[in-house]
Amino acid sequence: MSETIAVIPGDGIGREVVPAAVRILDELDLGLSFVMGEAGDDTRSDTGEALPDRTVRLVENSDATLFGAAGETAADVILPLRAAVGSFANIRPARAYPGVDAVKPETDLVFIRENTEGVYAGIENEIEPGITTLTRVVTDDASRRIARFGFDYAAERDDPVTVAHKANVMRATDGQFLESIDGVAEERDAEYDTALMDALAMQLIMQPEEYGVVLCPNLAGDMLSDLAAGLVGGLGLLPSANIGAENALFEPVHGSAPDIAGEGIANPTATVLSTAMMLEHLGYDDTGTRVRAAVEETLEQGPHTPDLGGSASTEDMTSAIINRL
Amino acid sequence: MSETIAVIPGDGIGREVVPAAVRILDELDLGLSFVMGEAGDDTRSDTGEALPDRTVRLVENSDATLFGAAGETAADVILPLRAAVGSFANIRPARAYPGVDAVKPETDLVFIRENTEGVYAGIENEIEPGITTLTRVVTDDASRRIARFGFDYAAERDDPVTVAHKANVMRATDGQFLESIDGVAEERDAEYDTALMDALAMQLIMQPEEYGVVLCPNLAGDMLSDLAAGLVGGLGLLPSANIGAENALFEPVHGSAPDIAGEGIANPTATVLSTAMMLEHLGYDDTGTRVRAAVEETLEQGPHTPDLGGSASTEDMTSAIINRL
Ligand SMILES: CC(C)[C@H](C(=O)O)[C@@H](O)C(=O)O
Ligand SMILES: CC(C)[C@H](C(=O)O)[C@@H](O)C(=O)O
Repeated sequence: MSETIAVIPGDGIGREVVPAAVRILDELDLGLSFVMGEAGDDTRSDTGEALPDRTVRLVENSDATLFGAAGETAADVILPLRAAVGSFANIRPARAYPGVDAVKPETDLVFIRENTEGVYAGIENEIEPGITTLTRVVTDDASRRIARFGFDYAAERDDPVTVAHKANVMRATDGQFLESIDGVAEERDAEYDTALMDALAMQLIMQPEEYGVVLCPNLAGDMLSDLAAGLVGGLGLLPSANIGAENALFEPVHGSAPDIAGEGIANPTATVLSTAMMLEHLGYDDTGTRVRAAVEETLEQGPHTPDLGGSASTEDMTSAIINRL
Repeated sequence: MSETIAVIPGDGIGREVVPAAVRILDELDLGLSFVMGEAGDDTRSDTGEALPDRTVRLVENSDATLFGAAGETAADVILPLRAAVGSFANIRPARAYPGVDAVKPETDLVFIRENTEGVYAGIENEIEPGITTLTRVVTDDASRRIARFGFDYAAERDDPVTVAHKANVMRATDGQFLESIDGVAEERDAEYDTALMDALAMQLIMQPEEYGVVLCPNLAGDMLSDLAAGLVGGLGLLPSANIGAENALFEPVHGSAPDIAGEGIANPTATVLSTAMMLEHLGYDDTGTRVRAAVEETLEQGPHTPDLGGSASTEDMTSAIINRL
């Protein structure tokens, strides 16, 4: 049975790296069908909306979505898209690769970011002029769901679990987060550590090799995964998966990179690795592994795009990956 | 006129590094008088309260406070102490030093952290069992105050200013933060950049030399300054100042370090540099500079405590600093 993939390049380098990933998917000849969707700054200019209903329906009706990046409208596009696939978990692996300069070559982390609440609940108010509030929401349901997902994920990788929090200050909310996670851990007899998110930011830089899976509230996951990108050589390397109960969306962690957009030199790695995650999610495990291996070989032996210190184009790097499939 | 300094060692290594700093102050013979205050885990065991009223009054009635660290009760001690001095700005310099292994030897940053609101406003609720909220507060007043302070500070150092925020998600609150800061910048014709806090976490690791003063909402400042500690060789090096309109409190960024407490091997650097900030704040600029220079010479030439790869004791390192005054 052939799956339908919604493909949304978006803005900037999204239009370069997503086609690169689709070229690779075509090459794999899995019989997937692709439907193209529009979203982002240009879509807003053209239609008045950054994320047209048509695109949302397309995503809802597909088996998985591959998204590139959006510019100024990023939050207006990606947050509703994550909601459209019912994503509760955002998986963000951050790994250093042989052949790529990394601040910390021993980094091999996976952030599992709660993807529905925290400061992203979207509840803000201007109480009176100059006095604004945001309501951060943490629930037992969402915290247990991400904990179950995270412990499963870590068990499969045989990785230790660290739970990031700031319960010494956010006592009720992060207290709830910890309590719910502890409940799940107890049910499963799973081991884990907790770490204050500030101290963890330092520890991840000084001793990344001590960590494996890091379970995070939403905004902490946003920051810590970008931090980890800094350790491994930049956002050009970080894929991500937004997992829902029945649907999922895959995207590079990087944005639309307006500074290099249109030059054909964007690093396709993050999007191609996101595609590998998508293939694995759809059950094409061996194919996912093949793609991953081809990317790793290319990172090790080149050619490299300028962000990795090389002078190759997106197309050169993509062709090299294809040749190594 | 002689100033009165409230001295609160607190728990764990606070009791080792604060006495080290007091030894240095004694040596400088400035005629300061010291009053000792109690706070922390042991104080709670003894008195039922982590921060007795007596200690708060002592802090309020002193010209400045030198605080060490507290253990499990850290938040119950340090947040009220910051409030007791009316602190609105938390200054956290993070600098790499010759002689100390640093992940990024070119790091020379100062975080100016808003110190009164954000998620630290202390408003949390359990709406019903399993549903918790926290109210993040951002006001024009506090944002302007930290902006004025930050722009002044940066002008003195001739440093660029970067404002950390997440206004694409926290639109009203961080939108207010940005708007207020922009208002102050316009009044003063000051230049600055803004950076999304997630992207900034990565950039600070990859190119710390591009940044100078980083103006942060409260929790972002907490995380980003610890991140910077990771870049320069650990929390043992980071001093901080909590500045109020008429009073101030100085403390190392590190905690009570129960793992090494009592062994006499804690690195006194962060506390001694906090003391230098205190001296400068009280108007003893030259003396502050002398202390700083003696610390830098000791970091460059040793002896070093174990966290810096050496085998010196707190006392050895303190004596070396004193010999170099
Ligand atoms: C664009 C923004 C809303 C988004 C987020 O905060 O999740 C981005 O930073 C990311 O990490 O995917
Ligand atoms: C102990 C805690 C409340 C405190 C904070 O969050 O400010 C600490 O992390 C710090 O950085 O001084």
